[in-house]
Amino acid sequence: LAGLITLTTDFGYQDNYVGAMKGAILSVCPEARIVDISHSIAPQQIGQAVYVATTSWPYFPKSTIHVAVVDPGVGTERRALVLCGSQGFYVGPDNGVLSAALPPELRPNVAQTVRPGPHLLAFELANPTYFRPSVSNTFHGRDIFGPVAGHLAAGIPVESFGPAVDEMFALPASTATRSGHGVDGRIQHIDVYGNLVSDIAESMLDCRRVDVTIEGKTISGLGRTYSENEGLFALVTSDGWLAIARVNSSAAAELGATIGDKIQVRW
Amino acid sequence: LAGLITLTTDFGYQDNYVGAMKGAILSVCPEARIVDISHSIAPQQIGQAVYVATTSWPYFPKSTIHVAVVDPGVGTERRALVLCGSQGFYVGPDNGVLSAALPPELRPNVAQTVRPGPHLLAFELANPTYFRPSVSNTFHGRDIFGPVAGHLAAGIPVESFGPAVDEMFALPASTATRSGHGVDGRIQHIDVYGNLVSDIAESMLDCRRVDVTIEGKTISGLGRTYSENEGLFALVTSDGWLAIARVNSSAAAELGATIGDKIQVRW
Amino acid sequence: LAGLITLTTDFGYQDNYVGAMKGAILSVCPEARIVDISHSIAPQQIGQAVYVATTSWPYFPKSTIHVAVVDPGVGTERRALVLCGSQGFYVGPDNGVLSAALPPELRPNVAQTVRPGPHLLAFELANPTYFRPSVSNTFHGRDIFGPVAGHLAAGIPVESFGPAVDEMFALPASTATRSGHGVDGRIQHIDVYGNLVSDIAESMLDCRRVDVTIEGKTISGLGRTYSENEGLFALVTSDGWLAIARVNSSAAAELGATIGDKIQVRW
Repeated sequence: LAGLITLTTDFGYQDNYVGAMKGAILSVCPEARIVDISHSIAPQQIGQAVYVATTSWPYFPKSTIHVAVVDPGVGTERRALVLCGSQGFYVGPDNGVLSAALPPELRPNVAQTVRPGPHLLAFELANPTYFRPSVSNTFHGRDIFGPVAGHLAAGIPVESFGPAVDEMFALPASTATRSGHGVDGRIQHIDVYGNLVSDIAESMLDCRRVDVTIEGKTISGLGRTYSENEGLFALVTSDGWLAIARVNSSAAAELGATIGDKIQVRW
Repeated sequence: LAGLITLTTDFGYQDNYVGAMKGAILSVCPEARIVDISHSIAPQQIGQAVYVATTSWPYFPKSTIHVAVVDPGVGTERRALVLCGSQGFYVGPDNGVLSAALPPELRPNVAQTVRPGPHLLAFELANPTYFRPSVSNTFHGRDIFGPVAGHLAAGIPVESFGPAVDEMFALPASTATRSGHGVDGRIQHIDVYGNLVSDIAESMLDCRRVDVTIEGKTISGLGRTYSENEGLFALVTSDGWLAIARVNSSAAAELGATIGDKIQVRW
Repeated sequence: LAGLITLTTDFGYQDNYVGAMKGAILSVCPEARIVDISHSIAPQQIGQAVYVATTSWPYFPKSTIHVAVVDPGVGTERRALVLCGSQGFYVGPDNGVLSAALPPELRPNVAQTVRPGPHLLAFELANPTYFRPSVSNTFHGRDIFGPVAGHLAAGIPVESFGPAVDEMFALPASTATRSGHGVDGRIQHIDVYGNLVSDIAESMLDCRRVDVTIEGKTISGLGRTYSENEGLFALVTSDGWLAIARVNSSAAAELGATIGDKIQVRW
């Protein structure tokens, strides 16, 4: 069965970018199977791409090749990487977007350089043999990341792409902090339903009898499903994050909330 | 040739939901071929999903596995079903979204429970063997519907998923009614061009010399194509519904119309 | 390896149109591999489809079947075509959208009928054997173009679809003109980042020390990457067009620019 490649980018759906990248992949490996995760990451929002990748990549088969391209520094000295681990391959710029490949315990507390190992090998994409013949300064999805993914799908060994490196740039999984009988966090993602996903993990909560305060409103207790509540309510998402929702409506619209806004839990 | 699976959801294109569901499918059946119909069904709008599915599923090959997930009641007592008919398989919650699988003559006049048979067999999704090992309360697309579709694609017999059931919840195909020399209906869908699709079927019209009234404006006659008209005009869509359009422009924007608005036909 | 089909349309992602067309393709050729380029071409904007296709089709493998459907004249006397060249097959209405298949030197200076040959053969889609049994007046993507692409993918020879024709309608690649020590052009595309892509090709510039004027603002020099600049700047896109961008932000929003607006280069 041919290699499976997933794509997570901020390329949008209206332009040529996704098509050109898929063409570049298929020109290298015509039998590659390509799956879109999302191309609607907000422009340049690396953290949003990490959230989406972290909550979707783990559900794919082992050996899947995951490509993430949110790359505001394209064409500069920022490195390009391929990572190789027991769950698959990860291709993208070394700007934090590949944090989603790291096991949670290796995610740093602040954005910084980390060692990905020992269970994740990293190689710099430095061998132009596996790039398009002509590489632009502004579209490495088409000229580098797509072709590299294609070559991986075609069976090229991961160490062929360039020298092993022992550092990569990584973003924190959460910046939430314990505060007495509670946790202070922030909204890290707002989904299509208007649900507000915080960066407070279920594991940080001592109990389910919590008061959650956001945008000046306090909500008591945790719901179990989306429909068995009224108005605003809190719940834990299927990925383990505390979130605020509204039955058949948008919590984001009701609260006027945006990514980065504070959220407090007390018990 | 591996199983073909179509997806119709309100998951949107910006989040992890579509990717996680596809990963869950491919982890069960790596060779499954997945086709997106739409993930831009408006949140919780079951009726819109039924419209989109009814007008796309019939064009797929027999034995295609059609999955529809618009599921505001996820995690509650609402059942999950798989249907099996001569044209394919249908997987989703038992909240009306699977109405699109019913032959038109079995669609009820009001939203209610119906018998899907005899040409459509129904089974409850009750066997956790075919779910993800851990099932959340809020994301059955990833934890139940996706894996079940993957197992169907891999050849698991439809009766393996749970007990046969003889009832399912269904929505009407239309609530339009005859009224003297005419029909009274409503707008059931607004497409990307701003065309207003009514729930008045061509078969309800006695002739093509009709006056159509919508939002206080009356349009005479039926056009044949989009370009051979001027301003607002009425036509019958390629799916057989009376619709209002505007040449190279949006009828919805001009009329300020929304789903559910009344539309009257007289002859 | 089964036939590869790309799709570029203005069908959007919310409706049944894309799904119905894919179903129609797969009903003809179940093993066809379908790649979405974009379905978010603005409604009826043939020129935008040509831009997107011109900048993505060349990256696909030879023999790929490229389908473009932006078709405001569907159901009228406008012809439908299939083109066959050394790089692949091209299917769509004869309204200019297939201009993207022409080599740059054959693109006309104004929208007009051209001879596509000798390296590109053209045939009218006239043989209903390869259409759906019932052809609507309003949805040829599903009833004609999709099935024809499916038959091409299944190996039907291109001359089977209808008579050879020696003319097709084509749009200019650019209407930019030299003007003393400069070039006058227009914005031809605005991408998801808000970058303004002009119709001034890099090859029309005598040097990189240029002043670019747009919406009353003048920008000096050409940048090399997106991040090594401040505020508004000009650069050449990876497809060779002069463009205006803004670091980590939208030039379109800052300038209030729209497609068709004038852009001047002087040196």
